Amino acid sequence: LVTDAGSSSIGRFANYTVFKGKAALSVKPILPDIRELDSRSSRTYRNGGVMLTFWPAVGQRKYDWEKKQVFALSPTEVGSFIGLGPAESCEFFHDPSMKSSLEGQVKKSLSISPLSNDNGYFLNISVVNNIQKTNERLSVPVTKAEFTVIRTVLSYVLPHILGWPQAMRSHQPTTEKKMSKQQG
Amino acid sequence: LVTDAGSSSIGRFANYTVFKGKAALSVKPILPDIRELDSRSSRTYRNGGVMLTFWPAVGQRKYDWEKKQVFALSPTEVGSFIGLGPAESCEFFHDPSMKSSLEGQVKKSLSISPLSNDNGYFLNISVVNNIQKTNERLSVPVTKAEFTVIRTVLSYVLPHILGWPQAMRSHQPTTEKKMSKQQG
Amino acid sequence: LVTDAGSSSIGRFANYTVFKGKAALSVKPILPDIRELDSRSSRTYRNGGVMLTFWPAVGQRKYDWEKKQVFALSPTEVGSFIGLGPAESCEFFHDPSMKSSLEGQVKKSLSISPLSNDNGYFLNISVVNNIQKTNERLSVPVTKAEFTVIRTVLSYVLPHILGWPQAMRSHQPTTEKKMSKQQG
Amino acid sequence: LVTDAGSSSIGRFANYTVFKGKAALSVKPILPDIRELDSRSSRTYRNGGVMLTFWPAVGQRKYDWEKKQVFALSPTEVGSFIGLGPAESCEFFHDPSMKSSLEGQVKKSLSISPLSNDNGYFLNISVVNNIQKTNERLSVPVTKAEFTVIRTVLSYVLPHILGWPQAMRSHQPTTEKKMSKQQG
Repeated sequence: LVTDAGSSSIGRFANYTVFKGKAALSVKPILPDIRELDSRSSRTYRNGGVMLTFWPAVGQRKYDWEKKQVFALSPTEVGSFIGLGPAESCEFFHDPSMKSSLEGQVKKSLSISPLSNDNGYFLNISVVNNIQKTNERLSVPVTKAEFTVIRTVLSYVLPHILGWPQAMRSHQPTTEKKMSKQQG
Repeated sequence: LVTDAGSSSIGRFANYTVFKGKAALSVKPILPDIRELDSRSSRTYRNGGVMLTFWPAVGQRKYDWEKKQVFALSPTEVGSFIGLGPAESCEFFHDPSMKSSLEGQVKKSLSISPLSNDNGYFLNISVVNNIQKTNERLSVPVTKAEFTVIRTVLSYVLPHILGWPQAMRSHQPTTEKKMSKQQG
Repeated sequence: LVTDAGSSSIGRFANYTVFKGKAALSVKPILPDIRELDSRSSRTYRNGGVMLTFWPAVGQRKYDWEKKQVFALSPTEVGSFIGLGPAESCEFFHDPSMKSSLEGQVKKSLSISPLSNDNGYFLNISVVNNIQKTNERLSVPVTKAEFTVIRTVLSYVLPHILGWPQAMRSHQPTTEKKMSKQQG
Repeated sequence: LVTDAGSSSIGRFANYTVFKGKAALSVKPILPDIRELDSRSSRTYRNGGVMLTFWPAVGQRKYDWEKKQVFALSPTEVGSFIGLGPAESCEFFHDPSMKSSLEGQVKKSLSISPLSNDNGYFLNISVVNNIQKTNERLSVPVTKAEFTVIRTVLSYVLPHILGWPQAMRSHQPTTEKKMSKQQG
């Protein structure tokens, strides 16, 4: 299989990637921005999410990472994804230039629609750029097994991108105590 | 989106918030009270729970945190929430003055009822205060995707508010051993 | 509510308890016996499980911990519990004296049967002791919400009582490295 | 019960084993290969998986570990396993000599098919070796309860074999800070 050669190694790197005939799809977590205010308090400044990256096939088992299109799912969109019933579909719309002077010039959409006979889903990203006059579209069919993997890791990661495990971690009396002994 | 500006930063802070036309709803974990008796034993003195906070809209995308109403779900009420079927509803009643001289003077209720066509749920908090002669009611419609997020984080947090992960953590031979080496 | 006053504080203590008219039921994890062979290997010598404790009501909101009956669910019995369908029932049989000279003299059984109208389950423990000529039976009706709590914490704890999280923990390069620096 | 005497104690050892009339089946996690590049970044070089080991009965409650056959499930095959519906079946094919000169000489297959009346599944491994002219087949019936255990631990372990928890762990401000204090 072709490896995800173009991706960065900065930060903790983990993903789940499927390679299909016309494009590849990679799913990876986006960490929340949690800052420590002092030794007893922290705050989630920005929720994390889940990054979907599509990049096209340019030959047999060759994929061009430079032509990738990304879609960052918010926690609620992750909820929509993992709650999707067998015959249901959903579509999300993003404007990467929202609240800038370019607002409305680039339209991104991600659609998830069921394949026939309960065999999985079709994931489709569309990016319409009115400034560059481009219209990119990449599609990846995902089998039921692959969708189960994505749903399982998304269910796992959802509390993490909202910062809940980090918040629960404050109440570990043993570790706290031992730590302070070490520092004393 | 409007941020949760009025909330405290003391403690580990994490929540999931939805902003709707008439009110906002925030969901966050309440930590259990676990105390260490000695280096080998600890005890959960009080279970945690999940805090629901409702606060009203006072203008377009403006919400008044000072007028918030809270409802603390017990572990069993969390179980009722996450086990709710598509067409089911449930209602909880709390008396914040229970076992005090004001018992029965304030009646809080939280109801969860399905929206039509499997499109989510309606969360409604009602606080009747016989002393102050007030009757507050706040309602937030929650989409199916948002409900999936809440259900997922509640399922995640349920063992934590009962102290189970903290109890399981005692059996980590490696850490224990390394820790004692460091202390020696 | 009556607290679980008779239980031991040795070890990490966590449970989930319901108090009903005729008896109380407490659910808590049993830790696996994992031993470290050296700094790079460990082994699960004995799987953990889940301990169910029933003890009878002896007055209004008073329960007699001295008359408790216990039933330790194996991992597979935990699987049977959490996989139980809405109208299904199951029954487990244990012989606490198995492989001793008293084998067959004490017969314990735990049955889980659905209440009418999808309203929860009836948990029933029976202990027939042929030596002491006793036949104890304790029953606790568990609501759908309480059953959801038990099922959720049992699903959470199942990998832990089999030692899987402990096994996965060996592959944390960062911690390992930092730990060894501290020891050097 | 017969213990898993032939298995190695190197590494963190955890499994779930069922012993049946004609063979035993053991399920255990395969750790991913995650390497730390520097103190702030790591990378998953190879995903983990789940190892299924079948070994035959050679007498009453005696099993011959030397005659074991193994099948390593990939993350996507784990997804296929845990997403299996009550009446569904699936089959996986592996070539352990893929990309070597012996490619195609050994054919391994694992099939999972439902038992009658929703009573569990039949797991069957077949290894056809054209060089040694052997055709080994081992089968284990798995009850619904046992299948629930396997599905639960596989759902738990799936994010871990993809390296997601390890990636999320980088964002623990408290630990990071305390660690650096200790090292300073």
